Amino acid sequence: MMGCLVPLAMLLLTLSPITTKAQAPLKAQAPQTTQYQEDEARLIRQIFDSALVSGRSYPMLRDLCKKAGHRLSGSAGAAKAVELMFAYLSELGLDSVWLQPVQVPRWVRGEAEKGTVRVDGLASDYRLRLLALGGSVGTGSQGVHGEVIEFGNLEDLEQADSLQVRGRVVFLNKPFDQRPVNSMAAYGGCIDIRFDGARLAASKGAIGVMIRSLTHRLDSFPHTGSMQYGDAKVRIPAVAISTEDAEWLSQTLRTQKRLGKRPRVSLYTNCYELPDTLVGEGAHDDGAGCAHAVEAIRLLKAVGYQPASSLRVVLFMNEENGARGAKVYADWSASVGEKQKVGLESDRGGFAPREFSSESSLERIKALQPWLRFLDPYGVYAIRKGGSGVDVGFLRPQGTELFGLIPESQRYFDYHHAATDVFESVNRRELELGSASMAALLYLLDQESR
Amino acid sequence: MMGCLVPLAMLLLTLSPITTKAQAPLKAQAPQTTQYQEDEARLIRQIFDSALVSGRSYPMLRDLCKKAGHRLSGSAGAAKAVELMFAYLSELGLDSVWLQPVQVPRWVRGEAEKGTVRVDGLASDYRLRLLALGGSVGTGSQGVHGEVIEFGNLEDLEQADSLQVRGRVVFLNKPFDQRPVNSMAAYGGCIDIRFDGARLAASKGAIGVMIRSLTHRLDSFPHTGSMQYGDAKVRIPAVAISTEDAEWLSQTLRTQKRLGKRPRVSLYTNCYELPDTLVGEGAHDDGAGCAHAVEAIRLLKAVGYQPASSLRVVLFMNEENGARGAKVYADWSASVGEKQKVGLESDRGGFAPREFSSESSLERIKALQPWLRFLDPYGVYAIRKGGSGVDVGFLRPQGTELFGLIPESQRYFDYHHAATDVFESVNRRELELGSASMAALLYLLDQESR
Repeated sequence: MMGCLVPLAMLLLTLSPITTKAQAPLKAQAPQTTQYQEDEARLIRQIFDSALVSGRSYPMLRDLCKKAGHRLSGSAGAAKAVELMFAYLSELGLDSVWLQPVQVPRWVRGEAEKGTVRVDGLASDYRLRLLALGGSVGTGSQGVHGEVIEFGNLEDLEQADSLQVRGRVVFLNKPFDQRPVNSMAAYGGCIDIRFDGARLAASKGAIGVMIRSLTHRLDSFPHTGSMQYGDAKVRIPAVAISTEDAEWLSQTLRTQKRLGKRPRVSLYTNCYELPDTLVGEGAHDDGAGCAHAVEAIRLLKAVGYQPASSLRVVLFMNEENGARGAKVYADWSASVGEKQKVGLESDRGGFAPREFSSESSLERIKALQPWLRFLDPYGVYAIRKGGSGVDVGFLRPQGTELFGLIPESQRYFDYHHAATDVFESVNRRELELGSASMAALLYLLDQESR
Repeated sequence: MMGCLVPLAMLLLTLSPITTKAQAPLKAQAPQTTQYQEDEARLIRQIFDSALVSGRSYPMLRDLCKKAGHRLSGSAGAAKAVELMFAYLSELGLDSVWLQPVQVPRWVRGEAEKGTVRVDGLASDYRLRLLALGGSVGTGSQGVHGEVIEFGNLEDLEQADSLQVRGRVVFLNKPFDQRPVNSMAAYGGCIDIRFDGARLAASKGAIGVMIRSLTHRLDSFPHTGSMQYGDAKVRIPAVAISTEDAEWLSQTLRTQKRLGKRPRVSLYTNCYELPDTLVGEGAHDDGAGCAHAVEAIRLLKAVGYQPASSLRVVLFMNEENGARGAKVYADWSASVGEKQKVGLESDRGGFAPREFSSESSLERIKALQPWLRFLDPYGVYAIRKGGSGVDVGFLRPQGTELFGLIPESQRYFDYHHAATDVFESVNRRELELGSASMAALLYLLDQESR
């Protein structure tokens, strides 16, 4: 999900043969003979058995996390990740494996950020746990220093008097809404402070911005992610602080206000060309997606399936901070006259699969419901209307039918864009089940082409 | 699930008023008016919102794990757990809270077990990671020493010549079947080596038994659990070794056999009256069940629901090694002429809820399906035929309708009966969703009594 730190997002495609002829219309309903159902059920059983007994998603993800690690676009880790996954794919006996050049923005975190808060009466400054937001400018070696002013959301900041904001550091303290069971909804409700906070704060004269980390948890890990300056005239540094620090700071601001005082913050962020070692391994976001995609194809081969369509795995560079890989790929695909029938993305982590989302019409989705009899035994309960993924989304203009894998989401934001997103946070069985679910859906979709 | 280490299993009951009159027949179908559906949906929304925003399952479980910790029947931890949960329940403003005396078997692990394998040619003995099985006799301070003989399952041991087994230590190396997506099925397929291995091995003249730990993972943590001697004439010590050690030992036995050699094992287990500090906190199994049960009732009160039936939380002592708490409770309930309408158990960990199991008729289960429209938005996808739980099972003779909470099961055996089953392995949101799901089902069932 918006894998700024893990730009190797994935995409798995079934293609109709590469021609320029119009696509065959999608069938309203898969054939329903008993023989068909038995064949389907047997092959899908083989896929899941193979995945759970001898699946390779988990060792593949271990390699990706431990050998490449952090892999922001343009970094040494990203290059290593490309090399590793190219080697994996080359071993699968596919018709071809190739690399597609792509220009990416190259933002480098540099040395570890520092931040302190000076509170009147405290013997020493409070040390914040923070990360620069992806795409932010640095503070320079002199740092940024100023009084803190807190807002609960962008609307309040928008309405604030510029005189109050000018020369100060804006603290955007918008907590996750804990209520949505689909935890992505909480993310959607807060992401504006990360994307747009710096632009808006700068327009009011602020000299820096600190956001509360986007996570359900109350803990000490800052969560980063991309931001954008848009049409900002002045670019001010932007950081995320941990939720625990956000709670402390908010309470301190309230207490000090009663005393007529206002704490001051000092921020130091660095944009040197040095590798970052502080942020996680991008295990769930979205190393898991890479492993899912490669392994889905390997599983179909492992069970001896001969596809009717061409199947292609695409691992995208730069999913979050630009989606350049997806753009270049979609442009290339259109330019060579491909009609890609189906796109399936995994970008929501390596948790146990629960559903598939589909961008198709409700009529088409209804027609797919009988497939649940093949998927339900493995814990995939639903195919529902919903977004697919950032990368496959660029194929929408081609008329590609788009799907997304939807795993259990409760733990996603425990790890998202934080140092905790490491291989050890992934469960082997949950990861392998995701790969097998992807393979099973591809198989069912591919059968429609027969 | 079979919480030998965590004998505070739980049970949550809706009771019809305590009379001896015959139960009203179960309704085939809940009322389906639009108003009914809106009321249902709104109250269930309130339950889930309350659980996710300000639920108390998680802090309650932290207390249970960190203040009582390990709580095998008859231990100081068990007494502390009773005290803690009594205090929690007393704060809820229930009609009454009481303790029910129960006699329990008191098996004490004693000092940490030791085990080594002597292999010809190895400079030093290999140190096994092991735990005594619950209920096993100790080895005595002299230990048990003998050659190792491996069997892949009880059937092979059954057919073996006693001359081969006599005077040796039997190693039962039956790995989990990785294929079942419902991971409880893998447990069911292996539990015979733990329950029955010592009795059978002793009948062939073995002097000790070592089982491969019952888990999907290949790691260094031994997983214990109860065993029984049945009609065994001789009681021999039984231990579980980690899966990594089982793999090593099996391979070593094969290599040595080619050289005409047979490794010897030495086992030391102790049954002193000392608290055990080696085994986990019983967080998933089944501290989570206790928290689910208490919190479900608290949530119903928190949203202002006035139940039609009496609701009772029961936290059972001694779920695995005897189920004495459940027996005493069921006997008492029958003796005072209660007719308990519904029993709902949570004993499968604090993972995200997915389904409810029901022991009712298929007709009744079919009639309950419309409730899924209220549960599906929270990730509870199904109500299916299946076992409820060990403790509520004792109410079957009363005609009680039995349900079980079925959470995601992939990680259950990573922690089951091992030192890894600690509070930190539980996710707050997943735990609270379990409590809310229990509250929602209780609410729907209670509405049937109106």
